[in-house]
Amino acid sequence: MPAQITSTSNSQVKNVIALMKKSKARMEQGLFVVEGIKMFQELPDGWVDQVYVSESFEAAGSMDAVRKICNPLVVTDKVFAAMTDTCTPQGVLALVRQPVWELEQMISLSACPFFLILEQLQDPGNLGTILRTAEAAGCTGIVMSRDTVDIYNPKVIRSTMGAVYRVPFFYADRLEETVIRLREKGFMIYGAHLHGAVSFECPDYKVPCACMIGNEGNGLTEPLASLAHQRIRIPMEGKAESLNAAVSAALIMYEAYRQRRE
Amino acid sequence: MPAQITSTSNSQVKNVIALMKKSKARMEQGLFVVEGIKMFQELPDGWVDQVYVSESFEAAGSMDAVRKICNPLVVTDKVFAAMTDTCTPQGVLALVRQPVWELEQMISLSACPFFLILEQLQDPGNLGTILRTAEAAGCTGIVMSRDTVDIYNPKVIRSTMGAVYRVPFFYADRLEETVIRLREKGFMIYGAHLHGAVSFECPDYKVPCACMIGNEGNGLTEPLASLAHQRIRIPMEGKAESLNAAVSAALIMYEAYRQRRE
Repeated sequence: MPAQITSTSNSQVKNVIALMKKSKARMEQGLFVVEGIKMFQELPDGWVDQVYVSESFEAAGSMDAVRKICNPLVVTDKVFAAMTDTCTPQGVLALVRQPVWELEQMISLSACPFFLILEQLQDPGNLGTILRTAEAAGCTGIVMSRDTVDIYNPKVIRSTMGAVYRVPFFYADRLEETVIRLREKGFMIYGAHLHGAVSFECPDYKVPCACMIGNEGNGLTEPLASLAHQRIRIPMEGKAESLNAAVSAALIMYEAYRQRRE
Repeated sequence: MPAQITSTSNSQVKNVIALMKKSKARMEQGLFVVEGIKMFQELPDGWVDQVYVSESFEAAGSMDAVRKICNPLVVTDKVFAAMTDTCTPQGVLALVRQPVWELEQMISLSACPFFLILEQLQDPGNLGTILRTAEAAGCTGIVMSRDTVDIYNPKVIRSTMGAVYRVPFFYADRLEETVIRLREKGFMIYGAHLHGAVSFECPDYKVPCACMIGNEGNGLTEPLASLAHQRIRIPMEGKAESLNAAVSAALIMYEAYRQRRE
């Protein structure tokens, strides 16, 4: 039985807590935290930095699968509870290395790429849901503006349901330049816009293309929207003024997927 | 200037807090709480029971619109902060009477009804987003199982963006009986299911119909699913195992809306 960590003042424990709470710590160390058995099991080979399990998890004999892959540190249940931000922790938590994607690499992954471009998205649940939907809809990459919510925020990670491991993404320091680069590469660029000229079902998504989605409250900024070949709108009945950002993204991605399946 | 309420021990203030926090209090009194200027402005005539504003809201001269309609009670900012569950309250909050809808009435509202049926949905954000999307997609009514999250939960209300005023809904004590009743009335019943026989674009939504969506973790229960004329699935790529419930509902409602717009 390995030695247990029994104190929350342990430096490794303090570092896990920092990585849970602070975007800056995650960026500096190039790590993020995943929690739960399912998220642990789905981890791609070579991504794990360090695994932590609770004493209860170890006592329950659930360790075999974990020990095979890595050398987990055991912490008391009290210490584990301090490290996690879930109410009913499953007793396994991993520090994971952040994947590094570049634009050219993301483009080359698919013969006919379909990207989602997110500008200033603020809600962690929305971003996580978008990643989860993106995987299901066959979206081949996600580009985010630097001021989008941190994808490694534990709330985002949880709501991706593992898609964070499988959908390539990166943060663009200058999003407009990235969009211009995609245009030069022959991508059609569509922008979701309340006053779009055409309904979202009209564009041709069977070519290399990207769709831009803006901030929850304000939509796309005008400088970015003006880079679209076409502004697209989602029709709405009643007094509805807009849709949730994750819903808008889902409708557009699934329309692209429908066309691409045909 | 009307008299101010200065204490959180005031019985009316205590009742607002109870209505914010407790589903049981809301049900017993037939009231719910809405917050913010926009939600207040969109309130249908005759729904308001009592309005509360903060002293800052009153001092800012924003009272005219409020005073015209009703007789607001002014509370100190400290008391207002205790009543609300938002971090940056706008200073206006209303107790609102719960609408009462019945099945027959909901059916008769439209020549060709399209209902959403929700079983055991648990996440307030999902339910709110579903209502918001339902209004936009022209869904004519929502039926929920009694064990679905309380629609009058402040988190649900907030994320409906006003759709809670405009989309008819009710909780069914015996959801299966309600679905059987709809079948007898000639409705086609579709059930969202991971192992559905056909893709969600296949059914005919241009007839009176209803689509059933199940719990976030478990999907539809088998007794309810077995009442569907057709089980429908949403195609998925990659290793995605399921979609967020609000996303699934949105995709199906927008497919129905697309067919109905043609």
